[in-house]
Amino acid sequence: MKWSHFITNPKAKSEINTGFGVSSTDYGGRFLNKNGNPNIKRKGIGYFERMSWYHILLNMSRLEFLLTISLFYLTINLVFTFVYYFMGIAEFGGSKTLSHFEQFAEAFFFSSQSFTVGGYGRVDPGNLWINFICAFEAFLGLLSLAVVTGLLYGRFSRPKAYLRFSKNALLAPFNGGKAIMLRMAPFKNTTLTDAEAKVTLGLVLEENGKLVNKFYQLPLEYSIVNSLTLSWTIVHPIDERSPLYNFTEEDFKNAKGEILVFVKAFDDMFSNTVVTRTSYTFKELVIGAKFDYMYHRSEGDDKTLLHLDKLNSYSQVDLDFSKQTQI
Amino acid sequence: MKWSHFITNPKAKSEINTGFGVSSTDYGGRFLNKNGNPNIKRKGIGYFERMSWYHILLNMSRLEFLLTISLFYLTINLVFTFVYYFMGIAEFGGSKTLSHFEQFAEAFFFSSQSFTVGGYGRVDPGNLWINFICAFEAFLGLLSLAVVTGLLYGRFSRPKAYLRFSKNALLAPFNGGKAIMLRMAPFKNTTLTDAEAKVTLGLVLEENGKLVNKFYQLPLEYSIVNSLTLSWTIVHPIDERSPLYNFTEEDFKNAKGEILVFVKAFDDMFSNTVVTRTSYTFKELVIGAKFDYMYHRSEGDDKTLLHLDKLNSYSQVDLDFSKQTQI
Amino acid sequence: MKWSHFITNPKAKSEINTGFGVSSTDYGGRFLNKNGNPNIKRKGIGYFERMSWYHILLNMSRLEFLLTISLFYLTINLVFTFVYYFMGIAEFGGSKTLSHFEQFAEAFFFSSQSFTVGGYGRVDPGNLWINFICAFEAFLGLLSLAVVTGLLYGRFSRPKAYLRFSKNALLAPFNGGKAIMLRMAPFKNTTLTDAEAKVTLGLVLEENGKLVNKFYQLPLEYSIVNSLTLSWTIVHPIDERSPLYNFTEEDFKNAKGEILVFVKAFDDMFSNTVVTRTSYTFKELVIGAKFDYMYHRSEGDDKTLLHLDKLNSYSQVDLDFSKQTQI
Amino acid sequence: MKWSHFITNPKAKSEINTGFGVSSTDYGGRFLNKNGNPNIKRKGIGYFERMSWYHILLNMSRLEFLLTISLFYLTINLVFTFVYYFMGIAEFGGSKTLSHFEQFAEAFFFSSQSFTVGGYGRVDPGNLWINFICAFEAFLGLLSLAVVTGLLYGRFSRPKAYLRFSKNALLAPFNGGKAIMLRMAPFKNTTLTDAEAKVTLGLVLEENGKLVNKFYQLPLEYSIVNSLTLSWTIVHPIDERSPLYNFTEEDFKNAKGEILVFVKAFDDMFSNTVVTRTSYTFKELVIGAKFDYMYHRSEGDDKTLLHLDKLNSYSQVDLDFSKQTQI
Repeated sequence: MKWSHFITNPKAKSEINTGFGVSSTDYGGRFLNKNGNPNIKRKGIGYFERMSWYHILLNMSRLEFLLTISLFYLTINLVFTFVYYFMGIAEFGGSKTLSHFEQFAEAFFFSSQSFTVGGYGRVDPGNLWINFICAFEAFLGLLSLAVVTGLLYGRFSRPKAYLRFSKNALLAPFNGGKAIMLRMAPFKNTTLTDAEAKVTLGLVLEENGKLVNKFYQLPLEYSIVNSLTLSWTIVHPIDERSPLYNFTEEDFKNAKGEILVFVKAFDDMFSNTVVTRTSYTFKELVIGAKFDYMYHRSEGDDKTLLHLDKLNSYSQVDLDFSKQTQI
Repeated sequence: MKWSHFITNPKAKSEINTGFGVSSTDYGGRFLNKNGNPNIKRKGIGYFERMSWYHILLNMSRLEFLLTISLFYLTINLVFTFVYYFMGIAEFGGSKTLSHFEQFAEAFFFSSQSFTVGGYGRVDPGNLWINFICAFEAFLGLLSLAVVTGLLYGRFSRPKAYLRFSKNALLAPFNGGKAIMLRMAPFKNTTLTDAEAKVTLGLVLEENGKLVNKFYQLPLEYSIVNSLTLSWTIVHPIDERSPLYNFTEEDFKNAKGEILVFVKAFDDMFSNTVVTRTSYTFKELVIGAKFDYMYHRSEGDDKTLLHLDKLNSYSQVDLDFSKQTQI
Repeated sequence: MKWSHFITNPKAKSEINTGFGVSSTDYGGRFLNKNGNPNIKRKGIGYFERMSWYHILLNMSRLEFLLTISLFYLTINLVFTFVYYFMGIAEFGGSKTLSHFEQFAEAFFFSSQSFTVGGYGRVDPGNLWINFICAFEAFLGLLSLAVVTGLLYGRFSRPKAYLRFSKNALLAPFNGGKAIMLRMAPFKNTTLTDAEAKVTLGLVLEENGKLVNKFYQLPLEYSIVNSLTLSWTIVHPIDERSPLYNFTEEDFKNAKGEILVFVKAFDDMFSNTVVTRTSYTFKELVIGAKFDYMYHRSEGDDKTLLHLDKLNSYSQVDLDFSKQTQI
Repeated sequence: MKWSHFITNPKAKSEINTGFGVSSTDYGGRFLNKNGNPNIKRKGIGYFERMSWYHILLNMSRLEFLLTISLFYLTINLVFTFVYYFMGIAEFGGSKTLSHFEQFAEAFFFSSQSFTVGGYGRVDPGNLWINFICAFEAFLGLLSLAVVTGLLYGRFSRPKAYLRFSKNALLAPFNGGKAIMLRMAPFKNTTLTDAEAKVTLGLVLEENGKLVNKFYQLPLEYSIVNSLTLSWTIVHPIDERSPLYNFTEEDFKNAKGEILVFVKAFDDMFSNTVVTRTSYTFKELVIGAKFDYMYHRSEGDDKTLLHLDKLNSYSQVDLDFSKQTQI
């Protein structure tokens, strides 16, 4: 049996305005990476033209960012160090007779003082040209301070959805039949309200001898919650409206499919709309399982305790593929 | 009589997509704290992973914030003070022979000058290693300046709903029957437009021998105002559409319920949507009262005068539970 | 004839959810000031509690802002100047014997160097306490820099509707009858799209012997434009749907009314929604006039030329109150 | 045959709320420039009043911006240099006997050190007035740093639609008939979701002997895509609903028309709505052509490869004007 020989529910209407390609042979592997970024490469225009360095600097980890600006500070300093060194340290006012290495160090620290517009007063630019370079370095230093201030604020204040998804989607028992379930939970001290989820199924099908991508909007039990405070389990009931209505256990195992999840919410810490995405390939779908509870009444006080480590915790259960979900 | 033995209006439809748990035994005390934050705790991932330090620094009071950054400044300074002290103050250019305490002080002020990239010129880093540490401290100092600039701007510019709620909700006479009323007023020089209120009732009920949380969207007399300039009294008429239609005075006193209030508006100072929340437990519901007027024509000029101190001011009135609200 | 003895169109439905008061005797003069701010005062909580100093600093003119921060700089400096002066200038390293005035000046400039973390190296803090105060002043200086940076950015980047309204509203001929017209034009190099206008009429009426405020949403010929590039004339046709349908010329002259205008648009320079408001009292309504053209094809190039100085330019025309507007 | 003697489809309803003028003789050339800015000039109020210098500084290229602030730095420095020079360098503490040129240079570098609040300690302000000017220059320097920080952050963080349009629109074969097609593609590492396109046709027509501008909203095959990751071809089918239904090949060549394109999307890097616009005159419409494919499966990995240089790449095809598009 070939993997594309299953039958989708003819009642489920596919849609093409997903922004992904329709011809499966033109398209690469999964549509979205696990982290929600589209799985594409761009070519034909220069690297710097197709990259927003601001967003690269915003998206890197805290450590990478610190290393980047430290490296920047060092590089600029070294460039000016060489300039001062070759102009001659002897020219500097206040400088003593020194070995070559000491002269280089003197130049380096003089440069760093100019760049950070500090200055301890012992050494001073001795002649016109050194003065000119110092003035330029100080200008550059303040400009760099302005840039780094902007970048740091950009990093802090960028609205992000502090929301985690379960690693797996489950094919779980539901209303006498079955449903696809996935779970998310906010994991930081922010408050998400008016959260809305949109789940799209991408399937590779054979149509007139050609492999094509078909997309289906999956109807959800609840696609909106007023306030996303505890965990939220998103449920797509596999009933008559589902494109997967006729799928057998083998189809679920063999089909080349991908579940695309898109969540939009209002974060009232950022006072901004935040969005996040993820995707589950059919390989990441656990057949016959249900999620374990992840919150309970807290002992000792009257709060509710949410166990974030249990987000992907599930138990295997039996699933009867012959029974259908009741609407 | 047990507290959960009241009868809710069967015509009022409960809803489960509130984002709060449905099983009352799994859930803690009140759903929202008085300040609008959900009453939950998180566990299972590290403290720093589940906290956004940016938002902690944004939400603390002005005083706490000033103390935090002062403490930060002192701590960094002290760390470098110890480093300089143990490297030996005698190494510094321009330093005099001093007592140990004076040496420590010299190190401290040298450090603070390096950190703030100031420098008065008397003392200067005497050798290579001190120079290196100074360069690092100046780099750190400017980085800290950048961070503090970002945090301060984040604190100023964060859109907040400058809106206060009455401490109590009232069960007040209304159209021949009664209504739940609560009042809010903007208290700063900002302008809120297109304000929308959403009021949800959470009740703990016994269902099939189990305690469950039931949620009801409460219909409001007006849920939108064009412009929130004076006070706004939100009115939920207890008529046929209300889940509380059959409630007796005892039910109001004994039931374990909570009124969740959510307000969204466009603030045209911030040019941003702001949201705010609060909640009233049934213990905070005053039975038989109505709000006093809080604005009147100003004497001497033609302005309207809003008395913000009267926001929670109310007078006791008689309430006839046998009469019903006219729609 | 008393000014409130006109008859409003009974078909026009008044609404109360405007956020303005309904009892005319409790309410002050005009609802909105000409600049769009509500005409109210607040009392009952402290000045600093009911004022957002951030918004005060954002709303003041460029000149006022510069004066404020200059004054701040001077004040802080003077405070520290006095501290240094009374600690004794003689204590400073590098200081010469000076007259009292010169000592004060020395203290002042030393303070300003500490505050701006500059420092020319001649004078240095001579003892422990002076050093301590210097370290504090430098800390304060950098903090002030951070605050001013934030305020300046807040001022630049605050989304504002660069939109001007005609000073007067006109009662103009329209479709055989008449209409209330007012005009607006964007006056800066920004682009407003999806602009939406909402016009509300506030009237003071006598109802059962009491003076009340009645509000009517006025139907507009077009309330939305795709792109606000040229001028936009807002037209409320006085036809059967209008509350002013039965108004005579005397009514327009004598009634105490106010036309509240609210415009919302997306500014794609700021990438943000901007709103603006204004109001016209009936005293600012010109009876029998129409707006002059304010744009034409530019000579010499193929651009359209918009004359912003003609925004309120109108010509008197005859108006026949006996004829009705055709819908 | 005059260019305005074609017949538009009487079923297609024109609309006037586009924000552009209706009288063609009052209006200039194209409505929108290719970069999406309206093709208008403003007059009647002062230059600085009708320009937002913040937006000018935000919209200029990176190079122009750097030049502007360098020029600003130099200008301020030179002004203060002259002041110091004419006050007399001899007054400065630490200054040597110098030639006039050297005195000027000394003044210049002293000024730049004051402005950048650096200072190497050799030279210091010698008297009261120089001190006063130094304090003022340092204040100005920090203020400038604050302004530049704000501008740089404004430039980084300004939400922009990183979206490119094909240079030409095509009149392409479609469903047995023809359609107007244009193509866009995101070209940076940002993600656009919920993209919505609105296409308006502006035509110059003769009506009752007068030239007027008529605007038509063009119905699109798909006007919304969930996620704008690959290229998006916007298709206006020329069927019975189209104002161009009766157009002959000559009409397309001769008519004076302009296709206005407006795209709105949510960019989740900026967490903000971004908009962009462009326009195609009928001169920029290629008759009888279709777009070449611009993406395919990447060799060597499983990504999809998008060729951004092929955005405007098209092939000539035959077009049969006698056949009609099937709906």
